[in-house]
Amino acid sequence: MAETFHLDRALSATSVELGPLALCDARLQDEARYPWIVLIPRSPLAREIEDLHPLNRPRLMDEIVLAGEAVRAVGKALGPAVEKLNVGALGNITPQLHVHVVGRRAGDPAWPGPVWGQGEAVPLTQDQLAKATAAARKALGF
Amino acid sequence: MAETFHLDRALSATSVELGPLALCDARLQDEARYPWIVLIPRSPLAREIEDLHPLNRPRLMDEIVLAGEAVRAVGKALGPAVEKLNVGALGNITPQLHVHVVGRRAGDPAWPGPVWGQGEAVPLTQDQLAKATAAARKALGF
Repeated sequence: MAETFHLDRALSATSVELGPLALCDARLQDEARYPWIVLIPRSPLAREIEDLHPLNRPRLMDEIVLAGEAVRAVGKALGPAVEKLNVGALGNITPQLHVHVVGRRAGDPAWPGPVWGQGEAVPLTQDQLAKATAAARKALGF
Repeated sequence: MAETFHLDRALSATSVELGPLALCDARLQDEARYPWIVLIPRSPLAREIEDLHPLNRPRLMDEIVLAGEAVRAVGKALGPAVEKLNVGALGNITPQLHVHVVGRRAGDPAWPGPVWGQGEAVPLTQDQLAKATAAARKALGF
């Protein structure tokens, strides 16, 4: 029996839907400290990149690059330009395979360390959320 | 004039050469706390994944998956099996594009947080280094 893809609640609770890419659901992290997109491949049982079908791995890479463009667009919509992209697939806490694409700026709250596990999330305001989702969706082609 | 690839000293100082893959130099991080391989694409000016030629991006993904197998082999050679892979391209401190593939175990010193920027590195002993490089090179096909 084929498994059905269900987005983990830990991911849906902290992010907002942007739309479906060819492989992944793209979501905007509800986080004002960093422009941040999460990509979740719609592969029900994948926990590691190696669990993806070999044909889907280059798609994931393409979508990571596209999400990087979208993160830069979110950065410009909300503040100073992103200086560095951070890409991470960790999953130590939430096992469903997901890839973080995060825009970093020198002097941001976690700089130069990683963003994961650093301090409390600062939710986006309604105005920031509207601007960020519009910029991200445009960059992602939705 | 074509640029020549030179490995950043910050990367060479903290890791040991494993060998050249098709795209990346593979290096073993000199770190006893976690089985850890660093992949450095031999693209002289790349700082972000988007800087790689589109044909090289799927190669990077293939080498990330291969490095994951090697990290699991290093884990088995030195201790308990790796439970989760962490993959990260950060570069906030060392700008030359490099990808970390790290083997994690519940209860390791940084678990469940990221490994980057956590505590002081614990160098491998000579015996650990010999076992780890042998296991990694075999898995990588060197």
